[in-house]
Amino acid sequence: MRNTLHFKLKNKKVQEDVFNAIVKEQESIGYYGLPEQDISTVLDFAKTIPDDITQIAIIGIGGSSLGAKAIYEFIKPTRSLKRELYFFESTDPINVNNLISQLDFKKTHFLIISKSGTTVETFSIYKYIYSLNQNPKAYTFITDPDSPLEKYANDINASVLYLPDNVGGRFSVLSTVGLIPLALSGIDIQSLLDGALTLKKSFFDAGYIKNTLLKKAVYYARNHSQYSINCIFAYSETLKYFSEWYVQLWGESLGKTQRHSAFNVGLTPIGLIGPKDQHSFLQLIMEGTRDKSVTFIKIENFQDDIVIPDISLKHLESLDTLNNLPFSKLINMQCDSVIEALLEEDIPLDTITLKKVNEENIGALMYYYEILTSLVGELIDVNTYNQPGVEAGKIILKQKLKEQKS
Amino acid sequence: MRNTLHFKLKNKKVQEDVFNAIVKEQESIGYYGLPEQDISTVLDFAKTIPDDITQIAIIGIGGSSLGAKAIYEFIKPTRSLKRELYFFESTDPINVNNLISQLDFKKTHFLIISKSGTTVETFSIYKYIYSLNQNPKAYTFITDPDSPLEKYANDINASVLYLPDNVGGRFSVLSTVGLIPLALSGIDIQSLLDGALTLKKSFFDAGYIKNTLLKKAVYYARNHSQYSINCIFAYSETLKYFSEWYVQLWGESLGKTQRHSAFNVGLTPIGLIGPKDQHSFLQLIMEGTRDKSVTFIKIENFQDDIVIPDISLKHLESLDTLNNLPFSKLINMQCDSVIEALLEEDIPLDTITLKKVNEENIGALMYYYEILTSLVGELIDVNTYNQPGVEAGKIILKQKLKEQKS
Repeated sequence: MRNTLHFKLKNKKVQEDVFNAIVKEQESIGYYGLPEQDISTVLDFAKTIPDDITQIAIIGIGGSSLGAKAIYEFIKPTRSLKRELYFFESTDPINVNNLISQLDFKKTHFLIISKSGTTVETFSIYKYIYSLNQNPKAYTFITDPDSPLEKYANDINASVLYLPDNVGGRFSVLSTVGLIPLALSGIDIQSLLDGALTLKKSFFDAGYIKNTLLKKAVYYARNHSQYSINCIFAYSETLKYFSEWYVQLWGESLGKTQRHSAFNVGLTPIGLIGPKDQHSFLQLIMEGTRDKSVTFIKIENFQDDIVIPDISLKHLESLDTLNNLPFSKLINMQCDSVIEALLEEDIPLDTITLKKVNEENIGALMYYYEILTSLVGELIDVNTYNQPGVEAGKIILKQKLKEQKS
Repeated sequence: MRNTLHFKLKNKKVQEDVFNAIVKEQESIGYYGLPEQDISTVLDFAKTIPDDITQIAIIGIGGSSLGAKAIYEFIKPTRSLKRELYFFESTDPINVNNLISQLDFKKTHFLIISKSGTTVETFSIYKYIYSLNQNPKAYTFITDPDSPLEKYANDINASVLYLPDNVGGRFSVLSTVGLIPLALSGIDIQSLLDGALTLKKSFFDAGYIKNTLLKKAVYYARNHSQYSINCIFAYSETLKYFSEWYVQLWGESLGKTQRHSAFNVGLTPIGLIGPKDQHSFLQLIMEGTRDKSVTFIKIENFQDDIVIPDISLKHLESLDTLNNLPFSKLINMQCDSVIEALLEEDIPLDTITLKKVNEENIGALMYYYEILTSLVGELIDVNTYNQPGVEAGKIILKQKLKEQKS
């Protein structure tokens, strides 16, 4: 993974301070340690699921599904995997029905992922599915030790796996939450962690990414009021769900009241996919209000590349310049052309390049964004790891549910 | 369709002025007239495609695909359709390969949609597919009359259909661009137009939507600098691609240099899906920078509704309040709870309610957003219908393509 910044920033002191704060934060925040974890429990569990189980249904929402989905949808188009994953993330009955119709219950194992064990979406769906299939061997629960959900799972004789300490949902992709479904699908989870570890070392041991990450975080924080929207422009359809994961990570971590003021702060994440969004959002970046930074993500080598054939279409000869060009080269030329055009407009941007689509690269990319989020959170003085703003709606819903009962 | 605004605005003069401007604009901008069009040409064409063609592949990007995709993905989960649609929208070779692997060429008809006939994405993919299947009867081209693409299509004896005058790509969903693929899939395009027409009449003939639309447009324009981000929060997975269509319509129409100043203006569109994004973006809306308005979209009645069974889970009895609740009621209660929580925060919001998932409602909803876009564009003094900002990148790409040839 390479990351090239196209903006300047010299202030070293603020960079050193935030680096030291993050070094200290490692002691109390669990996600930092995940790349070094021992995954034998995960691999042992995966071996207990028989080979005739070919479908894994994940019942979880937000941090319980977005990370695994991002990695699964990144790898799947490039490789034939052992099992298919299905994500139940909505209480939309049309969606629940459609997902269930794709499952063969005899071949399906269900993972129910909930930290608290009281997530409304997860348990309304679980109850519905449990009413259709009451075999406890079909279910595994991932939750906190000693939670009511663990007690329930033990009561019905279903398997239980635990969440690690002090790892919030949106930082949990490299814990059991993400690793269990990914291992079951046949994705190489050790390589995922290896990729994250390489990135981590490069940051904490003063490797190439340290200065880049610090500079970028300080730039985003310092220019918070002007460049309040941070776009990711990924030139591959495989990164579509990575974008959704990024939106949760960035928005829910940074959109807060400041710790030491009453200011509402936060940076707004936007996930774009190229070249498609050249025909949609790009106009707004180029000519709209100057409130956006852009990070381009490129893939250097695409597997199963194909070449535009050497066909000249009568009356359309101007398109002959495309002939004999590999699609991988075209898509990267499209990306480079947009970068050049935006640099003329003096819009803050940087590029991240992944060598290819594999576990190591997505592991590194996600860890990169987790560190960046932690750095910016520290710099804009918010608690990066909580989400108090979503409680109000939950309390109102609870009240409404009680009222309709009585 | 109902639309309730939760913000006040009294200024009548500016509302009258923009209404008169839009009444005048109708004469020169083609999309306004689409709901009244005669669709017999479209239906006649659809009849020429044999029943053993069960797959329709659309090769087009941006305005040539987003509208049809939004409607198709809205209706499809609720009904078994006559043919499946496949959208080629990327030069990512992994994506092109995967889409092609899903097609049975003997059962596939290809629609190539390009106004200019020189879109790089469309023609790199077309050339590749044409090299695999050179039967001209497998292709229909939708383009401008007398374009080089029309000449090419005539040369190879393929069918050609025309785009209407003065209808830009992102406003073209109710023209041949959207109607042809949708009619082939079995969607009722007359109902689509009827829905749009009802909305149109309600606006132009002083019906219920006129004041609502004018008020909303003026509010967005007047508060442009503070509330620069306009979120749609749709409580149904069926509206996922409607969101993508909205993002293009809003961003590409409004992100401009002003006509009478050098200011870069524009409003940033964000598409959210509930309840999923309650676990992602909601925190940022609730506690982040106060720069967002939110429009909730609800569906009153879901087809094939299902009920949460009356099961009490030991240790999880607090979840019993969910029992016997239809999922459709739950998802709408979730939406209402978030609305109530946001109203406490005094964030500008409004709600749109669709009675059910059908053609008339999505037709009305899309026409509503087209008029709203035109109104806001007029109010913030931009040319709503061009996209000069995307040209720079295209010119650079053209140059790069020439260079790599020589």
